Amino acid sequence: MELAMQRKIGKLKKEDQGRLVLSCPNQPGIVAEVTRFLYEREADIIQIEQHMDEHFFLRVVFQCDQFERRIEEIRQQFAPIAESYEMQWRMVSAARKHRLAIFVSKEGHCLQDLLWRFQTGELEAEISMVISNHADLKPLVEPYGIPYYHVPVTKETREEAARIHMELLEPAKIDTIILARYMQIIPSWMTQRYRHQIINIHHSFLPAFAGAKPYHRAYERGVKMIGATAHYVTEELDQGPIIEQDVKRVDHRYSVEDLKRIGRDIERIVLARAVRWHIQDQVMVDGNRTIVFSGI
Amino acid sequence: MELAMQRKIGKLKKEDQGRLVLSCPNQPGIVAEVTRFLYEREADIIQIEQHMDEHFFLRVVFQCDQFERRIEEIRQQFAPIAESYEMQWRMVSAARKHRLAIFVSKEGHCLQDLLWRFQTGELEAEISMVISNHADLKPLVEPYGIPYYHVPVTKETREEAARIHMELLEPAKIDTIILARYMQIIPSWMTQRYRHQIINIHHSFLPAFAGAKPYHRAYERGVKMIGATAHYVTEELDQGPIIEQDVKRVDHRYSVEDLKRIGRDIERIVLARAVRWHIQDQVMVDGNRTIVFSGI
Amino acid sequence: MELAMQRKIGKLKKEDQGRLVLSCPNQPGIVAEVTRFLYEREADIIQIEQHMDEHFFLRVVFQCDQFERRIEEIRQQFAPIAESYEMQWRMVSAARKHRLAIFVSKEGHCLQDLLWRFQTGELEAEISMVISNHADLKPLVEPYGIPYYHVPVTKETREEAARIHMELLEPAKIDTIILARYMQIIPSWMTQRYRHQIINIHHSFLPAFAGAKPYHRAYERGVKMIGATAHYVTEELDQGPIIEQDVKRVDHRYSVEDLKRIGRDIERIVLARAVRWHIQDQVMVDGNRTIVFSGI
Amino acid sequence: MELAMQRKIGKLKKEDQGRLVLSCPNQPGIVAEVTRFLYEREADIIQIEQHMDEHFFLRVVFQCDQFERRIEEIRQQFAPIAESYEMQWRMVSAARKHRLAIFVSKEGHCLQDLLWRFQTGELEAEISMVISNHADLKPLVEPYGIPYYHVPVTKETREEAARIHMELLEPAKIDTIILARYMQIIPSWMTQRYRHQIINIHHSFLPAFAGAKPYHRAYERGVKMIGATAHYVTEELDQGPIIEQDVKRVDHRYSVEDLKRIGRDIERIVLARAVRWHIQDQVMVDGNRTIVFSGI
Repeated sequence: MELAMQRKIGKLKKEDQGRLVLSCPNQPGIVAEVTRFLYEREADIIQIEQHMDEHFFLRVVFQCDQFERRIEEIRQQFAPIAESYEMQWRMVSAARKHRLAIFVSKEGHCLQDLLWRFQTGELEAEISMVISNHADLKPLVEPYGIPYYHVPVTKETREEAARIHMELLEPAKIDTIILARYMQIIPSWMTQRYRHQIINIHHSFLPAFAGAKPYHRAYERGVKMIGATAHYVTEELDQGPIIEQDVKRVDHRYSVEDLKRIGRDIERIVLARAVRWHIQDQVMVDGNRTIVFSGI
Repeated sequence: MELAMQRKIGKLKKEDQGRLVLSCPNQPGIVAEVTRFLYEREADIIQIEQHMDEHFFLRVVFQCDQFERRIEEIRQQFAPIAESYEMQWRMVSAARKHRLAIFVSKEGHCLQDLLWRFQTGELEAEISMVISNHADLKPLVEPYGIPYYHVPVTKETREEAARIHMELLEPAKIDTIILARYMQIIPSWMTQRYRHQIINIHHSFLPAFAGAKPYHRAYERGVKMIGATAHYVTEELDQGPIIEQDVKRVDHRYSVEDLKRIGRDIERIVLARAVRWHIQDQVMVDGNRTIVFSGI
Repeated sequence: MELAMQRKIGKLKKEDQGRLVLSCPNQPGIVAEVTRFLYEREADIIQIEQHMDEHFFLRVVFQCDQFERRIEEIRQQFAPIAESYEMQWRMVSAARKHRLAIFVSKEGHCLQDLLWRFQTGELEAEISMVISNHADLKPLVEPYGIPYYHVPVTKETREEAARIHMELLEPAKIDTIILARYMQIIPSWMTQRYRHQIINIHHSFLPAFAGAKPYHRAYERGVKMIGATAHYVTEELDQGPIIEQDVKRVDHRYSVEDLKRIGRDIERIVLARAVRWHIQDQVMVDGNRTIVFSGI
Repeated sequence: MELAMQRKIGKLKKEDQGRLVLSCPNQPGIVAEVTRFLYEREADIIQIEQHMDEHFFLRVVFQCDQFERRIEEIRQQFAPIAESYEMQWRMVSAARKHRLAIFVSKEGHCLQDLLWRFQTGELEAEISMVISNHADLKPLVEPYGIPYYHVPVTKETREEAARIHMELLEPAKIDTIILARYMQIIPSWMTQRYRHQIINIHHSFLPAFAGAKPYHRAYERGVKMIGATAHYVTEELDQGPIIEQDVKRVDHRYSVEDLKRIGRDIERIVLARAVRWHIQDQVMVDGNRTIVFSGI
């Protein structure tokens, strides 16, 4: 009751909260085993959600006194279970903040929106840096005291730019890169290095209008709804696992400029949702599909 | 793997599938206890979903050889656990079909839609009878071979009509009554007898426009979206727990007749979803709110 | 006032109501000229809507005593104006009912839905025949007293089948063909013969998943919304002008079967809207885009 | 053609563009008369839209060389026509910018969103001042160089505060007041002074949850969608003509805090749309309903 009430009023202490996220081959007894393990460590389950496809996927959020202090010990105790079920897993503290780098180009609406959500505490993570191939959005970032790195990119210098990016990202121990309308192609080796850790917002309802100028093409095709798609970046352009999508109805009266304007609102909301779910460990990847567990 | 594949291709045998639905005071260890119980009986969990509010709510779907034959035995084994946690619970076979009575008045769109969904197998239940205060929709029902009872109702004969209804419902062991635009008030004693077993479709986005003539009032108020609400019927008119709602955008060009026409599409889809979730034991009631677990 | 009130209560007499639909090169004064023409003939404008793109598009609905009787005379009077502005135009009585042929294959949900909407008067047109490459849906159509023609089609007999279709369609003076999940390719010469008079419902949010098995491909791609698209059929498969689209949110828990089930509800509603707009002369084609004027 | 192309690429000069907005009793010939008037002044119609209810409503956007210079002359010429039809009307230059005052309390999301939209040129108006009963949001406004007036309000000082507001608004010739989550009641005499010129964003899908704490009440009622409503402020709290509404699906897993968070996104988008339509003269009031004509 206490716990439910704390949760209800949003007062659960993050330091006492853990998340266990795992996938493994289907096999009977996994849920029983995992929940018994947690019960024996006096970890109360706040939320449990599973999904069964070719593989089995599980996310458990639990409350456990002084979890952050005991996390290494509990991880070690869980390791043999994980091994016996051939699990891919991670156990993290809810108090741990993701370290993010935001990549932008010239359009500031997604960046501005994310900055505002982090500032007001709606999203909880640490924005370590903003990287851009243009200097335009520096004034937007400066008031927040976040470093803004201007790394120009041309077709010829793409590889070199990516190496400069890595020299910025690696020492800062960046967990996740957000392409907030970055509009540049990321080299394969970098998408592999940050596998399922780069989130892009594409300004169409994928798979429709992958690639360049989606709003122009949506106009030409005469679609009756436009959309945006947040997805993990993989080697193939705009083909990675989709995290979230949304759409808005339009009609023949809307010009390309109107579509862009309306699209901006969809883009920033879809991206914000995807980032939220990602940093709360709600998203798992199953082949080229995502499983998005509900958060708390 | 086998199980996942069967599920994927929709080939899980219903006879081997069970559902356990329960609520109880919050307490640690419930999930561990329940999943261990199922594991020890070689019941593989297909889906588990929980919710924690003042109370704890759980729904487990499991696969268990010859479950239907063994159901009584397993229920008896589970009873002591249920008692120790003060659970309200039920354990049912997925093969068991709900027995439904559909109440209608003169408008046939919801009835026609439900009949079609049951006939095509999209909804799996047994429609035992249709009851109406008018004879109008009899021709719609007859081709399906379902009994149609015409029980006229006036303000003065409401109680008497309800008693006639009971004489039809009780011998047929009706589980659930669906008010598919029935437009008549159900007496309190009957809503209590069928507590959380009567589903009504109200033609507005409740709590807006509870009561009579919602489309006229939506028109007068100039709302920019109209909706429909499926809810359990309680003593208070249009105040019961909401199961599902949906809306559709409208504008100043829509007449009341247009709102009614568009509303019909929302009503039948919202009602169909609510009925589906109810007969699959996905809906639990928490005070005046519903928890709708995902189905499979 | 009288007129507004008649309209409000849905009591405008169809016989006194006309529609003028036209497109022409942009030029000043068109609206003034057209509205003066109507005013001089004592035709009151009930609704006027225009669109300006490379071309100019106009739809006027007007009230005019005994319009149906005078229609030929008024058409002849309008012809010189139309010529001077190089208009493509048609002037029709609202009382005139479109003559439709519905093509189906084995899936009956769109057909059943359309039949119901026509029967209840929600859609006003004459369904002259149903044509199918299978006999399956005959029982669905028979109670309505509409002829059902079973014309089997194989890859080899496609042309021959189309010729049989024409022998059915031409004597019946069919205006519009509705492919209600017909699943067969229409020969080019037939799409040209019925240019912008064949409406197809495609079970995806075009241009995504054009072609076969869209729900399977939507599942594989892991999209977070599925949709349906009603469009005019042209020579290129699933590439014709889009009339209407809608979508519904889905997630990782939905199997292909679930997508099909949910898709059926989107398909029939999207198709019904497109048919309604088409038979009320609300749809104009502008290149590969449609203009959908609002109806009354 | 020229005009269409200019429009298509968003290059219509605002100074050459006019808007005529009018309502009058229904009568034949109005559209013919108005369009002839414009044609004779070499004003090309870019968009025309009408609506007929008890009254007749019309909005015409036209292109006319040097309209801004000639506006007074054209207004005078139109006056006799307006009088003969008993029109309420206004004729304005598209280049004229509305003068806005934004009222806020402590929550900054709507304010921040509007400031951003005006800064990027998405909304075209002049924000003359921000007025608040708290000092909290001053830092948000300062970088934009807009005056921020802190006028504390208590129940007792409401009238006095309103007089101070008027001393700020009147000299600045404010056209429209936007209550961007102001949370204070506006005195009747002030709503009458700014009749249909005060826009409020209410954080519920009106008429549901009018008044205080709508998200708490939405949670308690267990609705499956939450919404926001932009409306004109009248004497009766939350009862004025609705301009725009939108909703978002929620479920039992959402806490009140979640509803608030999701609501913020709906609120700011709904408010931005309403403001856009209002400052582009797209909104007309018909009793307690609004007519929202499409913009260009």
